[in-house]
Amino acid sequence: MTTGGGVFVTFEGGEGVGKSTQIRRLAETLTRRGHDVLVTREPGGSPGAEAVRHVLLSGAAQAKGPRFEAILFAAARNDHVEEVIRPALGAGRVVLCDRFMDSSRVYQGVVGGLDPEIVVALERIAINGLKPDCTIIFDMPAEEGLERVRARAGAAAGGQGLDGLDRFEKDEIELHRKRRDGFLDLAAEDPLRCHVVDARPAAGAVAAVVLSIVQPLLPDISCPTADTVR
Amino acid sequence: MTTGGGVFVTFEGGEGVGKSTQIRRLAETLTRRGHDVLVTREPGGSPGAEAVRHVLLSGAAQAKGPRFEAILFAAARNDHVEEVIRPALGAGRVVLCDRFMDSSRVYQGVVGGLDPEIVVALERIAINGLKPDCTIIFDMPAEEGLERVRARAGAAAGGQGLDGLDRFEKDEIELHRKRRDGFLDLAAEDPLRCHVVDARPAAGAVAAVVLSIVQPLLPDISCPTADTVR
Repeated sequence: MTTGGGVFVTFEGGEGVGKSTQIRRLAETLTRRGHDVLVTREPGGSPGAEAVRHVLLSGAAQAKGPRFEAILFAAARNDHVEEVIRPALGAGRVVLCDRFMDSSRVYQGVVGGLDPEIVVALERIAINGLKPDCTIIFDMPAEEGLERVRARAGAAAGGQGLDGLDRFEKDEIELHRKRRDGFLDLAAEDPLRCHVVDARPAAGAVAAVVLSIVQPLLPDISCPTADTVR
Repeated sequence: MTTGGGVFVTFEGGEGVGKSTQIRRLAETLTRRGHDVLVTREPGGSPGAEAVRHVLLSGAAQAKGPRFEAILFAAARNDHVEEVIRPALGAGRVVLCDRFMDSSRVYQGVVGGLDPEIVVALERIAINGLKPDCTIIFDMPAEEGLERVRARAGAAAGGQGLDGLDRFEKDEIELHRKRRDGFLDLAAEDPLRCHVVDARPAAGAVAAVVLSIVQPLLPDISCPTADTVR
């Protein structure tokens, strides 16, 4: 509960781990229980950040390397923090954010090879003191994550085993492995904030684990407030 | 001559000090003498930087405060450095750049009030080791700079003395003074790189001073190369 009574929870992990589904489920549960929930995402989430996101997704930022990309992500994150997240926390809301600083650490740092010192400096500038109260890292073996991404994309992966992978696909698996290891290393470094959740079970089972982690952080709203009683 | 035999000269100072005129004159003189000159400017100067410049000039970045602006300037500068300036220096060219890192120090740092530690960190990340060989800081009293800006804008300043200034104009003078002091302080901190040039004399006289500062840094091209002799 970093700021003004609100709670800031971020969700991280590789592609295909089911982040969006889980965030939606958690938001629904918490809203039903009376919490004031804000769901947001990165990159984007505020007008300034969306403008930067547009540069990131346009041809201009392509093939520039991780440094340029990391600085742009920092600009977008700073706007998102100051314009959306900090005010919501100040108003006592529960903020659920799809990707945040840990994605930069993994995608530009671990995978992109950007100097860790630069990653840390940009993070500090971007978040301006606002760390998540809790970060859920969804985890599954690289192969399963990749298979889910393919299934989602409607690719004809068929019954083809991993033995049948071509070189491009093997590179892809390697990248998924690197990202997964990156997230697991981050979690090990900051165990009080980061919680690794096995993303392989059925969505309902995963949702129960997520709720059990977030629950203790939430403000107690079981007692009616003076306003409600009157 | 930081990199590959090229020379990197930046031009700084408040509005109305005649930077553009002086850069054009110097570029013409050096080109006439056989130097391979590249004139560029910030913010902008490369496709990635121009895309970011668009965000800076759009409504999105307005009223966000100096931190967001400073991060975006850093992104644009990094692209400009890596895509344009460093390759040109590597090819032995003389690069004349209208505004560079010192403008960020003054506009976002001194005037914008952004934490100096952040200004320094962003500068380090943006320039990635590429400092100017020489920085010309054009200087004139704030009142004269402001008058020149007005004359250029075609404003009817008329014979009105400074006593006749309204509150908005007095604020403007104060801002010009703050910027001027910022640039002069920077020059005092780094006297080997920064040269303060009195911008009040006639353009030709100022040009002569600028040339006398830049001349000693230039590669010797008075002897014909082997290629030319053959």
